[in-house]
Amino acid sequence: MAAVGVILGSDSDLPKVRECFEIMDQFSVDYDVIISSAHRSPEQTVEWVKNASGRGLKVIIAVAGGAAHLPGVVASHTILPVIGVPVETGIAGGLDSILSMIQMPAGIPVATMPAGKSGGANAALFAVSILAAGNSSLAEKIVSYRKKIEIKIIEKNKSIKEMGLMNYIDKLEGKK
Amino acid sequence: MAAVGVILGSDSDLPKVRECFEIMDQFSVDYDVIISSAHRSPEQTVEWVKNASGRGLKVIIAVAGGAAHLPGVVASHTILPVIGVPVETGIAGGLDSILSMIQMPAGIPVATMPAGKSGGANAALFAVSILAAGNSSLAEKIVSYRKKIEIKIIEKNKSIKEMGLMNYIDKLEGKK
Amino acid sequence: MAAVGVILGSDSDLPKVRECFEIMDQFSVDYDVIISSAHRSPEQTVEWVKNASGRGLKVIIAVAGGAAHLPGVVASHTILPVIGVPVETGIAGGLDSILSMIQMPAGIPVATMPAGKSGGANAALFAVSILAAGNSSLAEKIVSYRKKIEIKIIEKNKSIKEMGLMNYIDKLEGKK
Amino acid sequence: MAAVGVILGSDSDLPKVRECFEIMDQFSVDYDVIISSAHRSPEQTVEWVKNASGRGLKVIIAVAGGAAHLPGVVASHTILPVIGVPVETGIAGGLDSILSMIQMPAGIPVATMPAGKSGGANAALFAVSILAAGNSSLAEKIVSYRKKIEIKIIEKNKSIKEMGLMNYIDKLEGKK
Amino acid sequence: MAAVGVILGSDSDLPKVRECFEIMDQFSVDYDVIISSAHRSPEQTVEWVKNASGRGLKVIIAVAGGAAHLPGVVASHTILPVIGVPVETGIAGGLDSILSMIQMPAGIPVATMPAGKSGGANAALFAVSILAAGNSSLAEKIVSYRKKIEIKIIEKNKSIKEMGLMNYIDKLEGKK
Amino acid sequence: MAAVGVILGSDSDLPKVRECFEIMDQFSVDYDVIISSAHRSPEQTVEWVKNASGRGLKVIIAVAGGAAHLPGVVASHTILPVIGVPVETGIAGGLDSILSMIQMPAGIPVATMPAGKSGGANAALFAVSILAAGNSSLAEKIVSYRKKIEIKIIEKNKSIKEMGLMNYIDKLEGKK
Amino acid sequence: MAAVGVILGSDSDLPKVRECFEIMDQFSVDYDVIISSAHRSPEQTVEWVKNASGRGLKVIIAVAGGAAHLPGVVASHTILPVIGVPVETGIAGGLDSILSMIQMPAGIPVATMPAGKSGGANAALFAVSILAAGNSSLAEKIVSYRKKIEIKIIEKNKSIKEMGLMNYIDKLEGKK
Amino acid sequence: MAAVGVILGSDSDLPKVRECFEIMDQFSVDYDVIISSAHRSPEQTVEWVKNASGRGLKVIIAVAGGAAHLPGVVASHTILPVIGVPVETGIAGGLDSILSMIQMPAGIPVATMPAGKSGGANAALFAVSILAAGNSSLAEKIVSYRKKIEIKIIEKNKSIKEMGLMNYIDKLEGKK
Repeated sequence: MAAVGVILGSDSDLPKVRECFEIMDQFSVDYDVIISSAHRSPEQTVEWVKNASGRGLKVIIAVAGGAAHLPGVVASHTILPVIGVPVETGIAGGLDSILSMIQMPAGIPVATMPAGKSGGANAALFAVSILAAGNSSLAEKIVSYRKKIEIKIIEKNKSIKEMGLMNYIDKLEGKK
Repeated sequence: MAAVGVILGSDSDLPKVRECFEIMDQFSVDYDVIISSAHRSPEQTVEWVKNASGRGLKVIIAVAGGAAHLPGVVASHTILPVIGVPVETGIAGGLDSILSMIQMPAGIPVATMPAGKSGGANAALFAVSILAAGNSSLAEKIVSYRKKIEIKIIEKNKSIKEMGLMNYIDKLEGKK
Repeated sequence: MAAVGVILGSDSDLPKVRECFEIMDQFSVDYDVIISSAHRSPEQTVEWVKNASGRGLKVIIAVAGGAAHLPGVVASHTILPVIGVPVETGIAGGLDSILSMIQMPAGIPVATMPAGKSGGANAALFAVSILAAGNSSLAEKIVSYRKKIEIKIIEKNKSIKEMGLMNYIDKLEGKK
Repeated sequence: MAAVGVILGSDSDLPKVRECFEIMDQFSVDYDVIISSAHRSPEQTVEWVKNASGRGLKVIIAVAGGAAHLPGVVASHTILPVIGVPVETGIAGGLDSILSMIQMPAGIPVATMPAGKSGGANAALFAVSILAAGNSSLAEKIVSYRKKIEIKIIEKNKSIKEMGLMNYIDKLEGKK
Repeated sequence: MAAVGVILGSDSDLPKVRECFEIMDQFSVDYDVIISSAHRSPEQTVEWVKNASGRGLKVIIAVAGGAAHLPGVVASHTILPVIGVPVETGIAGGLDSILSMIQMPAGIPVATMPAGKSGGANAALFAVSILAAGNSSLAEKIVSYRKKIEIKIIEKNKSIKEMGLMNYIDKLEGKK
Repeated sequence: MAAVGVILGSDSDLPKVRECFEIMDQFSVDYDVIISSAHRSPEQTVEWVKNASGRGLKVIIAVAGGAAHLPGVVASHTILPVIGVPVETGIAGGLDSILSMIQMPAGIPVATMPAGKSGGANAALFAVSILAAGNSSLAEKIVSYRKKIEIKIIEKNKSIKEMGLMNYIDKLEGKK
Repeated sequence: MAAVGVILGSDSDLPKVRECFEIMDQFSVDYDVIISSAHRSPEQTVEWVKNASGRGLKVIIAVAGGAAHLPGVVASHTILPVIGVPVETGIAGGLDSILSMIQMPAGIPVATMPAGKSGGANAALFAVSILAAGNSSLAEKIVSYRKKIEIKIIEKNKSIKEMGLMNYIDKLEGKK
Repeated sequence: MAAVGVILGSDSDLPKVRECFEIMDQFSVDYDVIISSAHRSPEQTVEWVKNASGRGLKVIIAVAGGAAHLPGVVASHTILPVIGVPVETGIAGGLDSILSMIQMPAGIPVATMPAGKSGGANAALFAVSILAAGNSSLAEKIVSYRKKIEIKIIEKNKSIKEMGLMNYIDKLEGKK
């Protein structure tokens, strides 16, 4: 049974949050996914949200851009924790998405993630951290995940030492 | 029977759009008013919107600030023209309200008015201009209204001439 | 006889609002189009606007970018509803266009649409929603249009189910 | 035993999130509070965070303004869910706080709340929604809390009807 | 005969550019002043501009805020140099006024001055610098004006030395 | 003898203001050009400015980006009219250039032109409008220049009519 | 002999950086202060900077607002480290000052401090950190200074415990 | 022994500050480099910083983007001068990086460099200017470096004269 519901305002947002799904797969967290706009399919959206808790969902991730109302609309129909992912846009790289998602009125909280590449990944990780409350094996997986990130950085430092700084930069720039 | 429905996300927004009501009164346009949040009273909001057309409303004015989702949510449930008024906030004077209202996705239009003092007034006038389509007496009233605005400006120029520029400025600054 | 007049500050804005015309065609709404700048051809602009009502226009759509004065200038010479479409620019993706269009003074309303791709489409749809007031067949067309949008979303969800999420994302990314 | 830890970068931020504490009191959620800056008392901050889980904390709320690094620093030392509250500042009303809190790199999520008045309230409510996962009585309390908010809005509409709109606005403006 | 024409979108802008008039008085530059909005009195505005050159005006200063179209509209009807003064507003202190004034399309230039206090003063000084081209006594006056500004700064440094820095600051803060 | 001096902070800015030179050539206005940074060649900059008036210059155009101090520094050493052209940058398309150029303190005016493509063109045209004060043949050239712009627009409307709107758009999009 | 030179564009900026002087006094670091504008007293500014090194200055702090060119101009005439303090303004609380100070071209560095209250304090502390390089007693003073800041925070936590959280907040709000 | 420590939040930032290393090489200033995130490898970061002084480092350069906490975190653990380099991002070209780096609280200074290309170069040059305090040969090298920059500009002016302005621009645009 899915623990996380992911709702996206448009299927064109899917590739932008690809890592969201990959990370949940990595943590063996089940999720279901729906494309449903706050504005273009409001009935489907509300129906999906209202049944969320009954279907066993514990957390909802809502992805939208521009006048990014989706997380707010979702949050207004459920008491489950709602995580918003503002999608990058042409207006200053998503400032419109960020501000329309983050400035929720008192009473109906939405937890906003970064605009841009890290948004989808962090939404998944934040959902996992919520689920980890009553699940020590999941908590341990987060610890290992973080450890791996740290080790990757240590290894990069080793590579820089081995290759020499300028060679490493050249390689990153595709010069070699 | 009311032709214009005004919906506000919070009663604290009422004084900010006072002129909206005053102008509709001036034009003898009937309106009804409801306080209803997109997030805090979503059922009431949707119900009010869905019946809007049936109750005879021709235009809807939706007033909100911050994550100003109200006009978008309203527009998603009606095909009536929806006019949004972004209320001033602490974030750059309402940039959050403007951007979360204006950047609607293709398919569900919202007509956004200015943030700040002129927002309420212009929402009323824009609603009137829509109603004036099949109503030549209303159209004439707009013409007179604009004439009056123009005459007021001409009279101000007379006062400046009569008082002298610096005296006029002193008076505006409350020095005299 | 055209019901909607579309005025653009530059012919280079035409491709940016292509959907505006396509949607009006779809709704069988007649329109006429003129390239006329508020600044570079002010006489032609004013003349065109002043005759708008006489030519039978019911709504005006004004498209401009940068110091996007066109909708304001148009609105100052007509009492018809004026819809502004701010064209994307280099300044934060059109923040200059949005702010110079939206912040109209009390008295002369302009209804501002989104900057970017959805601006043209929504301007057309908003114009149609105004025309639909006294035209029930047009109102029905909007209802069907929205229905189609909704169905398209439902079908996308079916495709995702059929293809599998990751395959669907791969396809969007052009990987397959 | 406290379930929520609240850490603030400065005691001057306390009044700005007063509602955060009031709401947790209302929900009978225990919390402990510490003033500790990411920059001015980094050792105390890290020590407090590292022991957070051991002391039984389930969620952390981190409040900061300007270069609002506190939630990010806290999140880097714990796998508990971290909720960030960006405090209003002079730079566009807290745009600096929002952007420095929200744009976390992939791997270490922070859930950002609104800048301004609703930030503290929503942080508390979001924390409660997380705790409600394994606690049905808490979940019921959220449902009642939302009900109360909704009823308050309905009552305001009654008052407006009873008093008359303009009298109600006059009262809000303190004219009567 | 007036050499400089000053046009303001609203008489409420007069106090904000008071120094504009004071400086022109100081330089014995004659000017005439008109309140005329680009939007609310477009006929008067265009008529005034078209006659500007005929009345002997050499430079035009146009003052406006919000959707600050006035300088652009003025510039579209005259080949005289047009200086724009963006008035401070609630949107980020006048970012809307600045952007709607400065981003003129190629062909019709407007010379934009600062938003805020120095806008009016610098508009006057820039107008004077244009008039000084064929007027060596005016050029000398600018030189003396700048000299005086410089001397005032030198005298402030003397006062600081005499009073002591902290006393001087206390005095500025009104503590003594 | 050159009437206009153009100073650019970097030779990489030259292509961005190419139209500045082309327009002055078109108007047969002589100019001299220097690459000189406010920061990297301050002595050369100051020397060039101080001699500007002596060399017969009547107007100065200063082009810079980022911390665009050049026009301000130039204006501090001359009483000639100084026109600033903010070059586009990565920060919101040149918001840094605009704000660092426009917000000059009272006393030392700089006339700021648009960021982006029209900046160079309008700087040239504004310089020409200043020179046209005592030069009726130059004034006439501006009138013809504007006429030509207007005619170009009229011709575009003819082409649209002849080709059909959608064909015209296709052509602009390079589809045909 | 003064080790730090502080130059301010206007004496009205003095109170805004009062802590700059208080901190240098606290560290027994000698400084001299001059009011000198990049634009209004350019000769005095350049002369002062050119002699800075000869007078024994080791670091320069330059304070300015709006088109905040002073630090850049100073840096262009000296190889000493230049610290810029952007003063708060009406444009988004000093976004103009920040951007016009920070975006220096490659070659001439300026070290920018925060806009707002902490700018002056941190400029002093950064200057001290530079001077501490060859001065171990000064380095020790920084260590104690930081210790004191940390202890102050610890004491605040004690007060909160003793008074009770809500009493402490009431006191901060001046309610008791 | 290295005098400058460079810490970067991600190895992907290395190419963006390539000039930082090239300039230090040019000045024969030794440096060591580490990839270490404030959030993803907090232990390594703190350990590296705490030993910085002991390893003989005199200055630290910290490079980060987005929620760019690295310089602040570094500065909280050392009294060495910390120079921050905000990396360009999608949000308005790095406005998030700038604001999250620059707005440090009073007590813990960070010296912020430009976002974009000149950031790395200026960080190196600023570090060198600090080291030059007790090192007259290094000071002389800065003087020559600046001289060379100035000469390069003078030579560009020669090339423009020789080639002709339009040919020079054509060449820059790659037309010839």
